[in-house]
Amino acid sequence: MVSTLGSFGEKKVIETIIKAIRKRKLPLEIGDDATAITVASKYILFKIDTIVGKYSLLPGMNYRDLGWRIVTAAVSDIVVKGGRPLSLLMSITAPSDLELEKLIDIMKGADEAAEFYGTYIDGGDTNEGSELVLSCACIGSANKVIKRNPLREGDVIAVSGFFGYTGLGFQYLLEKKELPPSIKNVVLSKTYRPIARLDLVNVLEESSEYIRSSIDSSDGLAESLYQLIKCTGEGGIIVDNLPVHTTILNAIQDFDRLLRAVFYGGEEFEIIIAVKRGFENKVKKIFEKYNKDLIFIGNYRHKLDGVYFMKDQKRIHIERKGWEYFS
Amino acid sequence: MVSTLGSFGEKKVIETIIKAIRKRKLPLEIGDDATAITVASKYILFKIDTIVGKYSLLPGMNYRDLGWRIVTAAVSDIVVKGGRPLSLLMSITAPSDLELEKLIDIMKGADEAAEFYGTYIDGGDTNEGSELVLSCACIGSANKVIKRNPLREGDVIAVSGFFGYTGLGFQYLLEKKELPPSIKNVVLSKTYRPIARLDLVNVLEESSEYIRSSIDSSDGLAESLYQLIKCTGEGGIIVDNLPVHTTILNAIQDFDRLLRAVFYGGEEFEIIIAVKRGFENKVKKIFEKYNKDLIFIGNYRHKLDGVYFMKDQKRIHIERKGWEYFS
Repeated sequence: MVSTLGSFGEKKVIETIIKAIRKRKLPLEIGDDATAITVASKYILFKIDTIVGKYSLLPGMNYRDLGWRIVTAAVSDIVVKGGRPLSLLMSITAPSDLELEKLIDIMKGADEAAEFYGTYIDGGDTNEGSELVLSCACIGSANKVIKRNPLREGDVIAVSGFFGYTGLGFQYLLEKKELPPSIKNVVLSKTYRPIARLDLVNVLEESSEYIRSSIDSSDGLAESLYQLIKCTGEGGIIVDNLPVHTTILNAIQDFDRLLRAVFYGGEEFEIIIAVKRGFENKVKKIFEKYNKDLIFIGNYRHKLDGVYFMKDQKRIHIERKGWEYFS
Repeated sequence: MVSTLGSFGEKKVIETIIKAIRKRKLPLEIGDDATAITVASKYILFKIDTIVGKYSLLPGMNYRDLGWRIVTAAVSDIVVKGGRPLSLLMSITAPSDLELEKLIDIMKGADEAAEFYGTYIDGGDTNEGSELVLSCACIGSANKVIKRNPLREGDVIAVSGFFGYTGLGFQYLLEKKELPPSIKNVVLSKTYRPIARLDLVNVLEESSEYIRSSIDSSDGLAESLYQLIKCTGEGGIIVDNLPVHTTILNAIQDFDRLLRAVFYGGEEFEIIIAVKRGFENKVKKIFEKYNKDLIFIGNYRHKLDGVYFMKDQKRIHIERKGWEYFS
């Protein structure tokens, strides 16, 4: 019997191909946001990210946004591990009938992002293919790296900003759900031009000894929390404070819709950390010193299984169903 | 008027997108085989390479070979600039109906290559797309980097091995041209499983002060020589010694076919260097010390324009027509 990628789903596919290759001990484990190696007693961080045009080019989005996005995705993975980007490479596979102007726009958007993150696109590669595929490789450096250590009882889950924007954006653009005018601009701008949190790299460095684990929210809040649990091997996370801005809370009356937007949006590129129990105030103060938000949203509980949201004393199970390819 | 990539051709497309972005001064210029940055007084080399399944999967080639090839292509670019690979990342875009076994084979072939080159695949990315696209990012380190400096009158062009194998392989596999049984095995094995010349990295390091410029032969000997000329701005290269093994010379009677195989093969991943005039013997001795071949094939001539092959006192013009996408 022939078994296709589609019959397994992305998680199983990734698990299987990781099993197929040799592994070695590195500062960050395979499957973490980025790879780290040590060069001359410094950490070099290293990441490749790919997007396929037909999935990533949302209605109303332009090619500059697409270039911005692929760079942002790669930089975000470096930042969340404590690194600063040093250099970017872009690989573009495109069909022969694509307008050159669109390719230029992609590169300009990518370069705008590179400039915003204080670095450059220093090289790359072009290939012909039947559809648009963009890969971005980012190299960065760090004094300290933030691993994905197993969580411990009572570790506090915190996020670097509010969620829900991209979720509502995808609902509006892909499912044609209405967006109240009061939030339309902010939702669309955060959906089209997400920002990697390079502004937090000093804060992360300074708080690193109090951080158990970190991940960016590219796959959505729910999936990211499940990833933290997966690295722990067992247990669950209970979310008792929904990280949503008042404007959004006031604008969206349908609570189920809001919950879905918060947990299953993705590509917010916010940072999710597990703070070692008892060090919440220390970390909060470091964030405050730099004038940065840190929102405590819940805790790790050994006896739970999965992710839950507490609403009016009732536990709502947040299923694991982020964006998954090959499904 | 809408202008597509196809109406410009790959060289013009690359030129245009490089113009669209900011550049900075780095040890190696944009357009060189790899990118180099300096970290803690060491050179970090960095490269991304992409192959599209439908172009790279030759008849009779298996998916392991494909995995081997993408790693080899990325490693070769690091090596030719004087670097040793430190880590590899793989990004795979594949259609949902691809058999998982094929993906496993790709990863196993990639891992075999990684092991052969003394490194690991330490991370990556999977995406769904309508066709198979593989990207490999390689990071390496070097004590010295070999640039693409402008050539000077009389600089000697040398190559690390014989050419013609992959050219004959492509002719056989893609154009159904006959291959004499005496060379079939060697031609096919070098076509399916080319090898990056990591074995030369010590030699290159030791000879680096005598080397004006270097490039790998991934785009074919002719195109690589034209690239060396392009970095010079003008002039030409005259090839008076065809780098072909006697077995091949004896087996292929049709000289035009042989010439085409030597100059327009590509993906041999041999190293092409321009040795500073007067230092040929010094460099030759270093290669000999390590028991490595170095074949002097010709010279740079300021007054020429393009690449020429000298045969029986007559100059044959070797046109610039390597593999070009979007054409």
